Amino acid sequence: MAVTPALITEFRNIVGKENVLTEEADRQTYAYDAAVLTPVVPALVLVPVTQEALGKTVKLAYDSGLPITVRGSGTNLSGASIPEPGDGVVILTNRLDKILEINEQDLYAVVEPGVVTARFAAAVAARGLFYPPDPGSQSVSTLGGNVALNAGGLRGLKYGVTKDYVMGMEIFDYRGELVKTGSRTVKCVTGYNMAALMSCSEGTLGVFSRLILKLVPPPKASRAMLAEYDDINKASETVAGIIAAHIVPCTLEFLDNNTIKYVEADTKAGLPVQAAAVLLIEVDGGHERMVEEDAAKVVEVCKKCGCTDVRMAKNAEEKLKIWEARRNALPALARARPTTVLEDATVPRSRIPEMVAAVNRIARKYRLEVGTFGHAGDGNLHPTFLCDRRDKEEFRRVEAAVDEIFDVALGLQGTLSGEHGIGMAKAKWMEKETNRATIEFSKNLRRALDPKMLFNAGKKFL
Amino acid sequence: MAVTPALITEFRNIVGKENVLTEEADRQTYAYDAAVLTPVVPALVLVPVTQEALGKTVKLAYDSGLPITVRGSGTNLSGASIPEPGDGVVILTNRLDKILEINEQDLYAVVEPGVVTARFAAAVAARGLFYPPDPGSQSVSTLGGNVALNAGGLRGLKYGVTKDYVMGMEIFDYRGELVKTGSRTVKCVTGYNMAALMSCSEGTLGVFSRLILKLVPPPKASRAMLAEYDDINKASETVAGIIAAHIVPCTLEFLDNNTIKYVEADTKAGLPVQAAAVLLIEVDGGHERMVEEDAAKVVEVCKKCGCTDVRMAKNAEEKLKIWEARRNALPALARARPTTVLEDATVPRSRIPEMVAAVNRIARKYRLEVGTFGHAGDGNLHPTFLCDRRDKEEFRRVEAAVDEIFDVALGLQGTLSGEHGIGMAKAKWMEKETNRATIEFSKNLRRALDPKMLFNAGKKFL
Repeated sequence: MAVTPALITEFRNIVGKENVLTEEADRQTYAYDAAVLTPVVPALVLVPVTQEALGKTVKLAYDSGLPITVRGSGTNLSGASIPEPGDGVVILTNRLDKILEINEQDLYAVVEPGVVTARFAAAVAARGLFYPPDPGSQSVSTLGGNVALNAGGLRGLKYGVTKDYVMGMEIFDYRGELVKTGSRTVKCVTGYNMAALMSCSEGTLGVFSRLILKLVPPPKASRAMLAEYDDINKASETVAGIIAAHIVPCTLEFLDNNTIKYVEADTKAGLPVQAAAVLLIEVDGGHERMVEEDAAKVVEVCKKCGCTDVRMAKNAEEKLKIWEARRNALPALARARPTTVLEDATVPRSRIPEMVAAVNRIARKYRLEVGTFGHAGDGNLHPTFLCDRRDKEEFRRVEAAVDEIFDVALGLQGTLSGEHGIGMAKAKWMEKETNRATIEFSKNLRRALDPKMLFNAGKKFL
Repeated sequence: MAVTPALITEFRNIVGKENVLTEEADRQTYAYDAAVLTPVVPALVLVPVTQEALGKTVKLAYDSGLPITVRGSGTNLSGASIPEPGDGVVILTNRLDKILEINEQDLYAVVEPGVVTARFAAAVAARGLFYPPDPGSQSVSTLGGNVALNAGGLRGLKYGVTKDYVMGMEIFDYRGELVKTGSRTVKCVTGYNMAALMSCSEGTLGVFSRLILKLVPPPKASRAMLAEYDDINKASETVAGIIAAHIVPCTLEFLDNNTIKYVEADTKAGLPVQAAAVLLIEVDGGHERMVEEDAAKVVEVCKKCGCTDVRMAKNAEEKLKIWEARRNALPALARARPTTVLEDATVPRSRIPEMVAAVNRIARKYRLEVGTFGHAGDGNLHPTFLCDRRDKEEFRRVEAAVDEIFDVALGLQGTLSGEHGIGMAKAKWMEKETNRATIEFSKNLRRALDPKMLFNAGKKFL
């Protein structure tokens, strides 16, 4: 279907004249997300500012046969928020940004999808509670986007990921009808667990209207430390040793030598540029004494596994410095070359040494520069290729290297994507991780909830 | 379709002659589950003992148009494992009972669906790890059944319920094809979150073949205590006060006066038969000192909220006694009258006083005896009506009372069922909790994965 002037008028009547963006310059803004993929300029950008307008917008767009891509802040790394070709429209939900309820007695919150993650976490913290999911983009990403992509972050190992905090939701289905799933209670077995199905559906099954999110009491104490290694295997053994000691750190991060060098050049934080790897570790919990003892045990494991040095942050400032180093990993690597291809293949944590060795072997084979960092505790590493997309020959080598990384990850009983999503970037790989029957099963499910295939049709499955 | 002798021969060729039960006496055994509902004798009971036979059994039964009910141990309380009328067959999965892997490094296990919950928990404990979900029927229930119903238990408040431990699974779809979802990693966003959708699907979307379950390190210390009240509201205030103090007990259970009396008559455990209510509380965690301090704080909250007495278990024996009292709640009530109607409506925990008051008011209105106990920390109470099903007039009053309880729970932003399932017992109520659009959306989803409507068709939605 085409976007006609009459249709534009109808949309204006629903969302208000100023909330239908038709100008080329405006539309260009929503043509891409954080993935390294070809932009697609949408035919229209629609910005509902009320729930009612959101439902009517979905209905009119769907009834008119327009491809629909729902977008929060567009921080997606897999192209899941890139518009669809052929008069695709973007429904922007970031003006639906009300925190409707924070319930301290029953430990949940109700929010609209456009609430920015960090703003929500701060509002929850101000009420003495804790919303753990902390994707790297949290300062700009929206909760709706986090749920649609099942965003991860640094705290996954101990606290889980976004889906673990979705208790329920309301969505507008393809008819613009409001569908309710889940509840405000810890236990609920009424109906299908659709709130969980929607978490990670990448905008392909419906449009989020309201989310019910779980809250927890905050930890009462924490300790952060940095351990240096002259051998990546020793860092990996440390990860295994910490888990074997039955300590589950809230954060257990890894930087390889190349990443360390770039971060240090950028930040002068005092990172050991000669180290083969560092681990950044934080333990937290409900009691000062327990956390102290856990931290001491972690230090012991680091030493036993042959770290060259391990330092505990003595105060808040030193702790901040450790986490600034981690937060700067991607920006520092990204500044090195024009294009950064950030990968996300994930393996069971005991397979990390094999995975890191494979990444380095593959980078050498394709004559590419790679920096690897990420969530060692989750087995969720981010090998990052530094390149220039305009150099077509080099970029072909990058693509070949990424393909080989997927093969290795799957061979190690891992998965294509730990937290970045499938989107357009990895859809062609889905069958390899699962099988033909799984793709057909998934597409049957999808067609039932999106019979015209208008919800982000080019994403998730081919 | 009818079950013909030729079809029986085909099933025998797949599962072995001795694993096709055709005798009336055998089939009668599988006609009912733990719900108070009319039995339905299946036309056949099929007992595959290999994965391959399971897949072929599903395919042949589906292709032959036979209604299929998958059954583990049949401990279901909502009729979800009662066979379908009209030549319905039961596929019994409890001979598929292999624990295929317990991975201590990566904290997961792979099991077949027929593994008994308690056997699995013990095998995990023997490896120094912990599988928290503990439904009341754990000594006989199977993991497949637990996942299909998203079974809860006493540890839900702190540790979550079965769905929170399902990392991935393989299922046979209606074509007998193997579908894979989820992974062995903490983080996985590949494909739809179908493992979560299957958790709580009550056998309506496919047949579980293998389950990947999450394991955690066990707590290092615990303390149990019993608090007595002369007023139910004071017990409820204690629940709120514990949460407000940011303590999340692993177990926080409630018994009302009537339940206490029946348990004490049965067990002579020394329960206070004059108390309006007792709370049974256990705190656990990773450090002896923390747990001690938390327990002391809980005692303080109990006293502040006006308990008449609170006793901490001094040793393992006293602790066992506390939990035996809780475990005996249902059996003791069940012995009082021929029929026990155990309800499961759940409310946000802050609404417990209103819920308990409503249950007692409704029982008086309908001249019924009720005992209420359950998971106060989750808002998941089990009002239990003591009656005799053969007395039709009385049973009609029970049904009317249960209907009113649902109305009250929904009015308090609660849910029809916290952990027992919808099955046949509550399907007619689904629309009231959600809306027409949600039922249609759910049925669309279901029909896509079960086009002939043969998987437990009379369950979950009408």
